[in-house]
Amino acid sequence: MQILRTVAELRTRVRGWKQDGRQVGVVPTMGALHEGHMSLVRAARRGCDRVIVTIFVNPMQFNNPDDLSKYPRTEDADAALLFREGVDILFAPGPDEVYPQGFDSRVLVGGVTAPLEGEMRPGHFEGVATVVAKLFGMTQADRAYFGQKDWQQLQVVRRMVTDLNIPVEVVGCETIREADGLAMSSRNARLDPLSRAQAPALHRIMVKTAAQIRGGSEIAASLAQARDDLRQAGFTEVEYLDLRTAAMLEPATGIEQPVRLLAAAWIGGVRLIDNIPV
Amino acid sequence: MQILRTVAELRTRVRGWKQDGRQVGVVPTMGALHEGHMSLVRAARRGCDRVIVTIFVNPMQFNNPDDLSKYPRTEDADAALLFREGVDILFAPGPDEVYPQGFDSRVLVGGVTAPLEGEMRPGHFEGVATVVAKLFGMTQADRAYFGQKDWQQLQVVRRMVTDLNIPVEVVGCETIREADGLAMSSRNARLDPLSRAQAPALHRIMVKTAAQIRGGSEIAASLAQARDDLRQAGFTEVEYLDLRTAAMLEPATGIEQPVRLLAAAWIGGVRLIDNIPV
Repeated sequence: MQILRTVAELRTRVRGWKQDGRQVGVVPTMGALHEGHMSLVRAARRGCDRVIVTIFVNPMQFNNPDDLSKYPRTEDADAALLFREGVDILFAPGPDEVYPQGFDSRVLVGGVTAPLEGEMRPGHFEGVATVVAKLFGMTQADRAYFGQKDWQQLQVVRRMVTDLNIPVEVVGCETIREADGLAMSSRNARLDPLSRAQAPALHRIMVKTAAQIRGGSEIAASLAQARDDLRQAGFTEVEYLDLRTAAMLEPATGIEQPVRLLAAAWIGGVRLIDNIPV
Repeated sequence: MQILRTVAELRTRVRGWKQDGRQVGVVPTMGALHEGHMSLVRAARRGCDRVIVTIFVNPMQFNNPDDLSKYPRTEDADAALLFREGVDILFAPGPDEVYPQGFDSRVLVGGVTAPLEGEMRPGHFEGVATVVAKLFGMTQADRAYFGQKDWQQLQVVRRMVTDLNIPVEVVGCETIREADGLAMSSRNARLDPLSRAQAPALHRIMVKTAAQIRGGSEIAASLAQARDDLRQAGFTEVEYLDLRTAAMLEPATGIEQPVRLLAAAWIGGVRLIDNIPV
């Protein structure tokens, strides 16, 4: 595995692969890798001849500077994990390589970016769309692997790829969970022992609520009950827990079309998100 | 030469070329082709193994609906010209192929889009950047050819390609002029005989003004004189005639760095633009 820091080096390697007719997969990450990321890497390994993992903590997608500075950076451990999975290139550029002086463009996606995370984190999806477009251009990947854990992000990336005709296939992979149901996340490491013990309630309550809604319970009442249950279970703030259409994330009033439960809630000073199909 | 209407057909053809290691050039146009476009096609023919010319009158870049409806559409004549130049594919999609239902993304470039055309035509460069990004994704071209006649557009495209790491080389080609100096433009066909006879004054006055500035004349006074001269020569409105830095198009107070004269002016109800180096 090579660790590369510059777009020029990356392009040179990729050009060689393309000339040899190799299919290239990319797994864009912000590092602090866990089993969720590893499942994406393995999917890329199965689906492509060559695999690039990118690690870049993208300042443009952090609306909160404190969140950016607290984001865990564990590159040596990450590199060791990726080496064992047979990754070909770890691309880990610095901020000046991604946003050099004079940088002045951005990709805006409408509609699907507006609610939920878009409402709670102004500018977040503009930063995501822009950096993902850049990573697609840098890597010229044939396929890109994203986790369903960040469901709205996955829809934003799909929308952007379709709308801008970017020649990449977006593959969404199942959320990987701890044995107790907690969705894997780099943020989980910041949970104190009590909060970590309480955190699986998020997934448990969502699963119960989805079953109720599938069983015919009134949607608004089920969601209100779920939000109450979360607070009872130790969550200090429920930013949203909502039933939404799967692709456009519009409020869902029924379950005739594909819908998902999506939630963001705080526990022990850490913001957790999760989502499941209904 | 094949005429293709859908992205899917285009992608299939391009995939075959890429597998054979062919270098692909694209010349994005809005049709109504003239010798200026043909010079771009010939440059692409010299520089690439395969040449795609796109014809798409992009509604997103017209701030004025009247200008859009009046834009000349001459596809049969255009196709005949391109056939003679040995173009491989004429890609001429309809608006629904480029902007299908649900389309909701755009590319915004800052800085260089703000003055001159950006000020006179709100939203214009957003439409240009977005459609050019799409055409790059659709064609996966290795090189793209643009005329220097639309100098600001060329800078916007360069900025976008750099900022979003789009894997295409942008080639800017010299403005092609009529024998009397008038820059070739699809709009020239809309000039009545008197206006057509007067229109070359735009280039003539710009050349004279550039020489004066190079010779040490005071810049503001030279530009004011040039605007007066244009009105004397039959131009009814001078939107701008300005000295700007070549890449960022900031107001230039000297000629130590690369600078250009850029102008937009109306004659006989037609808006003409031109630019030259100083």
